[in-house]
Amino acid sequence: MTSQTTPIPGPRDPRLEAWRTFLVAHAQVRRQLERELQAEQSLGLGEYEVLLLLVRAEHRRLRMSELADRLGLSRSGVTRLVDRLEGESLVERTSCDTDRRGSWAQLTEEGRDRLRRAAPTHLRGVGEHFLDRIPPQELDALRRTLERVLEEA
Amino acid sequence: MTSQTTPIPGPRDPRLEAWRTFLVAHAQVRRQLERELQAEQSLGLGEYEVLLLLVRAEHRRLRMSELADRLGLSRSGVTRLVDRLEGESLVERTSCDTDRRGSWAQLTEEGRDRLRRAAPTHLRGVGEHFLDRIPPQELDALRRTLERVLEEA
Repeated sequence: MTSQTTPIPGPRDPRLEAWRTFLVAHAQVRRQLERELQAEQSLGLGEYEVLLLLVRAEHRRLRMSELADRLGLSRSGVTRLVDRLEGESLVERTSCDTDRRGSWAQLTEEGRDRLRRAAPTHLRGVGEHFLDRIPPQELDALRRTLERVLEEA
Repeated sequence: MTSQTTPIPGPRDPRLEAWRTFLVAHAQVRRQLERELQAEQSLGLGEYEVLLLLVRAEHRRLRMSELADRLGLSRSGVTRLVDRLEGESLVERTSCDTDRRGSWAQLTEEGRDRLRRAAPTHLRGVGEHFLDRIPPQELDALRRTLERVLEEA
């Protein structure tokens, strides 16, 4: 419970239309990207996103808890994704004795190659299902609006 | 592969900033809503969303495949959610002999009560982490922009 200065929105608050559109647009684009990645690259979108976060991380590794946080997933959800990636040798799990904050996921060379091969499918989809549907000015406005959500979170 | 009239975005396409902000904002708000629902209502956000879709559906039931589609989840992801809800008697699984398209998830009375109790926590979070951070005009613009993504999907 936090101190609430504005009233709780009622279930018929018209602003909820924007929230629902946000959720539905997100689910729809993800579904399309997932379908294409599976069909062309035999890779799930969640798996792709794990590889992408790792390739950008220092030493190409991240804590499992950090991965969960960045993906907005539960710890068990991330464990399932990383288990699958480990089974394909795209990621290795490592742990550190002096670090009680848990294990790490480390990108392998194979994982890096796989990401590089899959990227064109993913980027084509992001263009087709999202970027190319929105005029550039509106894309800028969308970014600025959603940055408000990220401030002092 | 679809016929492509516009070029595939490169990995440094500046428009990708808007796409990434969209993903990060979505993940961050979900994480906050999930944390609050778990803490106050012992309910996951995915479970809440299943209950919400069911209460709005005709006869308060949906096919598992329809649920997966609407939530942008894999079939196995939805199965896990519904299994958990079934374990708490919030949802029942039913199947129909003459319908080969698979089983249904049906909301129980207990599920409806649970949703009603959890809704204030959820709506408070949607207000606090999303709606109240965005001026009304920008919320309208956001909705209109994201509706472009939904057209002729």
